[in-house]
Amino acid sequence: MSTSPRTVGTDDAFADLTAVVPAGGAGTRLWPLSRSAAPKFLQDLTGSGSSLLQATVDRVGRLVGDRVLVVTGRGHAEAVALQLPELADHGLLLEPSPRDSMPAIGWAAAVLERRDPQAVLGSFAADHVIDDEEAFAEAVRQAVVAARAGALVTLGIRPRYPATGFGYVEVGEPRSHPGASDVRRAASFVEKPELPVAERYLAGGRHLWNAGIFVVRAGVLLDLLAAQHPEMVRTLRLLARQPDRLDEVWGSLPAVSIDRAVAEPAAQAGHVDVVPADLGWDDVGDFASLATLLEEHPRHAGVRVLGDPSDVVSSDSSGLVAARGGRTVVTLGVEGVVVVDTPDAVLVTTRERCQDVRSVVSALQQLGREDLT
Amino acid sequence: MSTSPRTVGTDDAFADLTAVVPAGGAGTRLWPLSRSAAPKFLQDLTGSGSSLLQATVDRVGRLVGDRVLVVTGRGHAEAVALQLPELADHGLLLEPSPRDSMPAIGWAAAVLERRDPQAVLGSFAADHVIDDEEAFAEAVRQAVVAARAGALVTLGIRPRYPATGFGYVEVGEPRSHPGASDVRRAASFVEKPELPVAERYLAGGRHLWNAGIFVVRAGVLLDLLAAQHPEMVRTLRLLARQPDRLDEVWGSLPAVSIDRAVAEPAAQAGHVDVVPADLGWDDVGDFASLATLLEEHPRHAGVRVLGDPSDVVSSDSSGLVAARGGRTVVTLGVEGVVVVDTPDAVLVTTRERCQDVRSVVSALQQLGREDLT
Repeated sequence: MSTSPRTVGTDDAFADLTAVVPAGGAGTRLWPLSRSAAPKFLQDLTGSGSSLLQATVDRVGRLVGDRVLVVTGRGHAEAVALQLPELADHGLLLEPSPRDSMPAIGWAAAVLERRDPQAVLGSFAADHVIDDEEAFAEAVRQAVVAARAGALVTLGIRPRYPATGFGYVEVGEPRSHPGASDVRRAASFVEKPELPVAERYLAGGRHLWNAGIFVVRAGVLLDLLAAQHPEMVRTLRLLARQPDRLDEVWGSLPAVSIDRAVAEPAAQAGHVDVVPADLGWDDVGDFASLATLLEEHPRHAGVRVLGDPSDVVSSDSSGLVAARGGRTVVTLGVEGVVVVDTPDAVLVTTRERCQDVRSVVSALQQLGREDLT
Repeated sequence: MSTSPRTVGTDDAFADLTAVVPAGGAGTRLWPLSRSAAPKFLQDLTGSGSSLLQATVDRVGRLVGDRVLVVTGRGHAEAVALQLPELADHGLLLEPSPRDSMPAIGWAAAVLERRDPQAVLGSFAADHVIDDEEAFAEAVRQAVVAARAGALVTLGIRPRYPATGFGYVEVGEPRSHPGASDVRRAASFVEKPELPVAERYLAGGRHLWNAGIFVVRAGVLLDLLAAQHPEMVRTLRLLARQPDRLDEVWGSLPAVSIDRAVAEPAAQAGHVDVVPADLGWDDVGDFASLATLLEEHPRHAGVRVLGDPSDVVSSDSSGLVAARGGRTVVTLGVEGVVVVDTPDAVLVTTRERCQDVRSVVSALQQLGREDLT
């Protein structure tokens, strides 16, 4: 009785979709949990028992099975393979050096396009959290419908507060894709706004958070990219044909984000669609963000805990305590505090200053303490 | 040519003086530095290289040589003997159980009285800091003069701020002891005051901090004590004659402070003198007090450091960082913070809440975490 072949639960809703998971970024605002040798995506930051990368691959794996490509730095190859043994043989693309998101995703696109010129790729960051997997699956399903029709499709997260740390997607008119009734034109991408602008976006309802999730035919992505960066596309397609030339050509690729290289100009040209969605999405960008994902301490209301609650003793305190040093952390009379304990370093700051934690990493590097970063 | 035999520098200014150093008290407001098994007096809390006990014995030893008696709990005998090997044989009185300061000092007084009925004792807490050793020597010299004349003599510290954590001594009329012109009658002892009272004391100039330093003939002390506690004095004199009965009789002694048992009633009766003094005295009672004794971080103004400054990295912060855990401590945007890092516990609080640190120790005990206290 099913008349629409493109609904969740049917086998071919995601049949041509491959998930690309760019696993990069140092997560310096989450120091000292996140380190250059063990960055955010390799860490279990929510106490779930899985790293953010494992949780991401699990989530997309429920849609696409083993059609997952993780793109990460060579230096993380061993750690990633240990966490994802099922991908160790054929599911990893290893970058010789970091080049931001466009070369990473573009490389995967070129590989997929060579396998199947009609392949659809969905790009999902390795270090974000998504709480509502059903909503996620439905949003991705609709995005795939629009992507098959030739669009670059992004998921737009309905704002929960006037965030100044994210870019936004401005929603335009509805599109008419059969079986994908939520899809809208993406009128534009806008940079991280100042607070008054973010408040206007929140009130207006036409701006959604840009979560950096893109669904698009591999060939469409490369063609859109070629409009701005033809040389990069030639290099990426060459790499797909001759993977042994990786070291020779990788260094010539410019470090540029997919937003800047493709999404923004393509939106200007009317080629981008957006699926508005409530996913319980969080970028786990800093400790204030992380705090919202953690449970309250069973005895100490207002204190969010990462680690064993029995390692945390608080009085007249609120905030976040990460007890990852195997020691007891005691807070007394500190509101909105952030205490992050690890075996070799402890950070004490406040929710308000979470964005500035990356400056600590710079300071440590200047002091010659790369052992801690 | 010397006509006064009782001046600093002459051999007999302190010839009949024995220093008694009660080494007790858990220092719970300095947790997690101070622990029940390694209390405050056994710790180097100022980074001087000596424990507070060692510094105290050094200081009084410069006046009295080896005439030093340390009174401490049996449980600390080994640690004290390790820190003070020169006292291990004959300089320790080991209490079977804590009984506050009066039984400790009274026991030493009985021992000294038995050796020499004219002996003068000076009682100096093991866990205070005195910065000005010359002023200390001169004040003690004058106190000895007054003690020889039969008074119970206390040193009164000129207040530097309206402290509510100390008792006060009210200064009365001058006494006329040859060679001890600073000595005054102590009109009364007053308990720790509320802030408005402490401010009045500071402005008025007639109230000095009671630093708990007493100089008195051993026999006079016991006779004054006998007025209130005759049974205690009988027991203490028995102990001096028959030290092997310690375990049998110690438990019968009431736990009472020397202030309550002797100083307050004796002041009422006009038997107490006071030597006003500026000693750079500090009781190191809590982390706010400790902070004033520490150096500022060479790179981070406003951050006082205990430990290796290279283990501390601060930005927009002030307060106290004790880096005693062998790890790097980073503070970012926290004013007036107190961070105390040790190998098994880290405390984060504020200067304002320092007095309440002892409540943490109670909380840990209630949680069955005596291993941390």
